[in-house]
Amino acid sequence: MEASMTIVKHGSVVSPKGFSADGVHCGLRYSKKDLGVILSEVPASAAAVYTQSHFQAAPLKVTQESIAAGKKIQALIVNSGNANACTGKQGLADAYQMRRACAERFGINEYLTAVASTGVIGEQMNMKKILEGVPLLNPASTKESGHSFETAILTTDTGVKNTAAKLAIDGKEVWIGGAAKGSGMIHPNMATMLGFITTDAAIDSVHLQQLLSEATDTSFNQITVDGETSTNDMVLVLANGMAENDPLTPNHPQWEVFKNGFQEVCKDLAKQIAKDGEGATKLIEVQVTGAVSVQEARETAKKVVGSSLVKTAVFGEDANWGRIIGAIGHSRASVDPDQTEIWLGGQCLFSKGEPQDFSEEKAAEYLKDKTIMIRVSLAAGDAEATAWGCDLTYDYVKINASYRT
Amino acid sequence: MEASMTIVKHGSVVSPKGFSADGVHCGLRYSKKDLGVILSEVPASAAAVYTQSHFQAAPLKVTQESIAAGKKIQALIVNSGNANACTGKQGLADAYQMRRACAERFGINEYLTAVASTGVIGEQMNMKKILEGVPLLNPASTKESGHSFETAILTTDTGVKNTAAKLAIDGKEVWIGGAAKGSGMIHPNMATMLGFITTDAAIDSVHLQQLLSEATDTSFNQITVDGETSTNDMVLVLANGMAENDPLTPNHPQWEVFKNGFQEVCKDLAKQIAKDGEGATKLIEVQVTGAVSVQEARETAKKVVGSSLVKTAVFGEDANWGRIIGAIGHSRASVDPDQTEIWLGGQCLFSKGEPQDFSEEKAAEYLKDKTIMIRVSLAAGDAEATAWGCDLTYDYVKINASYRT
Repeated sequence: MEASMTIVKHGSVVSPKGFSADGVHCGLRYSKKDLGVILSEVPASAAAVYTQSHFQAAPLKVTQESIAAGKKIQALIVNSGNANACTGKQGLADAYQMRRACAERFGINEYLTAVASTGVIGEQMNMKKILEGVPLLNPASTKESGHSFETAILTTDTGVKNTAAKLAIDGKEVWIGGAAKGSGMIHPNMATMLGFITTDAAIDSVHLQQLLSEATDTSFNQITVDGETSTNDMVLVLANGMAENDPLTPNHPQWEVFKNGFQEVCKDLAKQIAKDGEGATKLIEVQVTGAVSVQEARETAKKVVGSSLVKTAVFGEDANWGRIIGAIGHSRASVDPDQTEIWLGGQCLFSKGEPQDFSEEKAAEYLKDKTIMIRVSLAAGDAEATAWGCDLTYDYVKINASYRT
Repeated sequence: MEASMTIVKHGSVVSPKGFSADGVHCGLRYSKKDLGVILSEVPASAAAVYTQSHFQAAPLKVTQESIAAGKKIQALIVNSGNANACTGKQGLADAYQMRRACAERFGINEYLTAVASTGVIGEQMNMKKILEGVPLLNPASTKESGHSFETAILTTDTGVKNTAAKLAIDGKEVWIGGAAKGSGMIHPNMATMLGFITTDAAIDSVHLQQLLSEATDTSFNQITVDGETSTNDMVLVLANGMAENDPLTPNHPQWEVFKNGFQEVCKDLAKQIAKDGEGATKLIEVQVTGAVSVQEARETAKKVVGSSLVKTAVFGEDANWGRIIGAIGHSRASVDPDQTEIWLGGQCLFSKGEPQDFSEEKAAEYLKDKTIMIRVSLAAGDAEATAWGCDLTYDYVKINASYRT
């Protein structure tokens, strides 16, 4: 069954039937595109996950209200350059105004409209620019329009993030497409990233939410750039049913096919974000096996991939596995030093309490790769998890020492 | 009563009566001093706190055994250049051999001897060099000898850390002296630092342990450089009673005087470590007030001071208070965005859900200081706590990308 899934390169949020998108420059950013839209021909089942920050930005509140009203969304408007977070009553009024402007532009109900923002925290929105930008949005289903949208949602990202999967369900072609942004402030629990997933599958919002929540735990929540959590992050999924498959529920014979495809789309976007971490030169993948529970495996994998010392060692192409020990050491997981194994690529560096003889030359050669795989075996149970991150470089410091300037 | 305490500049572990020290070069490091000793004329009441890492280094196990035997320590031997951590059975045998060599050198019982190590993880000790170094140790009570010890325990530190307090108790002069090392891998729970405190006060080890555990929570456990926890860290306190005060217990009329002095010594050392964080140019002090509990205040303060984005913003002298919001946002503390206030130096940047008008010029001027004070008021309770850290700079990346080379 799983063979019926294909990941389509350069696929995007407009790959699924009935979706269009656009991105324009309205002036919140100096010259880059900063206002985007995704539009569905018909109202789509909607599901979303939001930042766990105590300081949830205004647009997230508005989007939650829209979804709560009827579990359907038809249009999403998103800006970069300003997060509209910690902006008080004015910020909330601005997010409502953005929603209204978008709804009017496309002749749909306000409650079918979602809003998202990303950028600097604590500055009031320039609504004049937003309102001037909305009429410029002309969504289309072309590759170029999808690309315009992907571009408009970026901040310090160095490139667009997109993906699409093609599935066969009930003899119909079903697509899942996605776009994301995120580069710094990326950490557990929906942190500082935006993800937008479209699908033409027929599925109700309850089951869509279930899939999204599950997939988030193994994808977006398993990446970290710098241990930070943003005020604005969310992943929004829209399913418009235009593929005309039988509605997907756990009882559908091909539920697992869709679930797999959905998870792969989420993982693909998550890895693209981790790889494009601010200043990053390498993607780091940490696999933890033999943990007592999935929670402990996830936490330990994230500890390692989030460690500043592991990250700088990888940047320095230094097989300094003591840094990995340091990170595992303060994980809350059950760890028996005498059972733990640490692998870098194909070499075992530490096993059963003893340092292993390994080839420093082979390790140095391996560390030149753009993707570095670290495996930690805890030999304490059967659970496993993977987390993704990136190295810590001079450019991370450079980008963030002068973020506002 | 508190007026009877004086912090004595350039005081050290040899300031209290009956303590001597030394530091020599034995060859574990290329040219720097790498082997040190503290010796008391008489066995001293001992107390210690240790790293919370699952991977506790061999010397810590040996020191714990020594203290457990009779609650007294007379000599401490410590090396830099090699952590003797994750070194298996050989490492443990080496730590025992270090203890024996030190005990024999000074003609004392092995169980009166403590051992500490700091440096690279996972490499076996060069015991030949250590054993050649031990006879070179000639402890004295001079300022120079104290300085030699302070130097021998350093790794990437840029300078020695020392302090001393002079108290009057029972009409006697009572001293507390301290030395510490630590620069990277500094985080909660006794992480990657060594602290050695001497005092000539008369106090038993039970009360000494109580004081140390309490003081650690408000000093060494409240500093962070990079969120990492080491395998080797410990703080060891020796009290030899030679000041001839009446034994200190909570019932002693001047217990609070000693307790205060002790806490100030711990805080002073902790701040010196934070200020000398790898690559640091500034000390950051974060005060959290109005928290529901001391635990929540401590956690929140550490979240802010440990945030890579706060740290890089301070390095960039950028009053980007959204970074502080980001850090508080994912604290597990009770936070009401509409009650939270954020202060930078003397200016309020955010209050009751709204960004405040503040002078960017004044903020930029303030951020040029070497010590940056951030205050977060949660208005949720009465508890408060302070944490210390440093900025994140290009040099942090440089130091750690090539730590082993």
